Amino acid sequence: MKIVILLFDYYTALDLVGPYEVLNKLPDCKIYLVGIEKKEYQDTYGLRILADNTIEEIFEADILLIPGGPGIDNLLKNKEVLDWIKKIDCSTKWTVSVCSGSLLLAQAGLLDGKNCTTHWRRKDQLRRFNVTVKNERYVQDGKIITAAGVSAGIDMALYLVSKIAGDKIAMMFQLAIEYDPKPPFDCGSPDKVPKEMLDKFNK
Amino acid sequence: MKIVILLFDYYTALDLVGPYEVLNKLPDCKIYLVGIEKKEYQDTYGLRILADNTIEEIFEADILLIPGGPGIDNLLKNKEVLDWIKKIDCSTKWTVSVCSGSLLLAQAGLLDGKNCTTHWRRKDQLRRFNVTVKNERYVQDGKIITAAGVSAGIDMALYLVSKIAGDKIAMMFQLAIEYDPKPPFDCGSPDKVPKEMLDKFNK
Repeated sequence: MKIVILLFDYYTALDLVGPYEVLNKLPDCKIYLVGIEKKEYQDTYGLRILADNTIEEIFEADILLIPGGPGIDNLLKNKEVLDWIKKIDCSTKWTVSVCSGSLLLAQAGLLDGKNCTTHWRRKDQLRRFNVTVKNERYVQDGKIITAAGVSAGIDMALYLVSKIAGDKIAMMFQLAIEYDPKPPFDCGSPDKVPKEMLDKFNK
Repeated sequence: MKIVILLFDYYTALDLVGPYEVLNKLPDCKIYLVGIEKKEYQDTYGLRILADNTIEEIFEADILLIPGGPGIDNLLKNKEVLDWIKKIDCSTKWTVSVCSGSLLLAQAGLLDGKNCTTHWRRKDQLRRFNVTVKNERYVQDGKIITAAGVSAGIDMALYLVSKIAGDKIAMMFQLAIEYDPKPPFDCGSPDKVPKEMLDKFNK
């Protein structure tokens, strides 16, 4: 199984590494980290991950994964990247995104008329496309699955494994990463926090 | 705030990137990725992350974080690393671990007589030390916090932020990574799955 993850500058590391940790456990799977150039890409804080392949070298994938991050906005007008995403999507069994990665799928036209989601701070931006934005942790519409913000990539990846390999395998992967979450607060979603806290994000 | 994370070959990427994503949001914080050598270290599946500094170049830290992974066993007899951990711990406000990283803290003598935890598959190994192993998502004992397996580093890091910067800041960080987990199964802990599933891990 060929899994292709798009790298770009100012990606969010956890968007990428959450699903990476889960999907890598699939048997006979190989993950390709792919960028416009064969170079190191930096996340928001400077974590450098090398793209082993350029997008020119990758023609197909079983799974295409687009992580999010502040850098996604720099790609929304990049015809080379958008054309590549459309081409790869023609070959995929699954096309998935985490966080603001769904904006790139939307810009490529892959979410037209579909249900989807994104990071809570990006929902208004995603609504500008011809899509129905849901308040879910992840949304499947056909072969496309879009996840909510950052950490939601872990839940989405486990769900994807259940679709590919069955519930028992997905449960074993969940146990392997001891994903029995106990966040210290019940505040991980904007409907769970006071308005003053949301306002601080917009300052 | 100087945060030092130890890199080594066969680290688990999510052990590192979960807390990395959370702790990096602290104001005036800088994360140092540190290895025995200044080189790229590979995780279990080949993800390469560069150590910017060697352990010889780092003399102190506000937070020392030891991630886990299969490679931790290769360090348990490494006197240079153990001595460095003991030295750095003398300067820290917090010394923390994720997953099997706690074994390295134990081997360095830092968990003597303390409450702690680790990945569920490593608990018997940790019990061989003079420690009390708890079945908790993360365990604080004084300035030491040890987290359970892999994904538990996210919960631990948010808790640590609440101790450093207060609950409101920690809640904002949790909201920023949209950590409102909804795992597809309730099976992330060994007490939640049938024995047959646990047996498969030992095959």
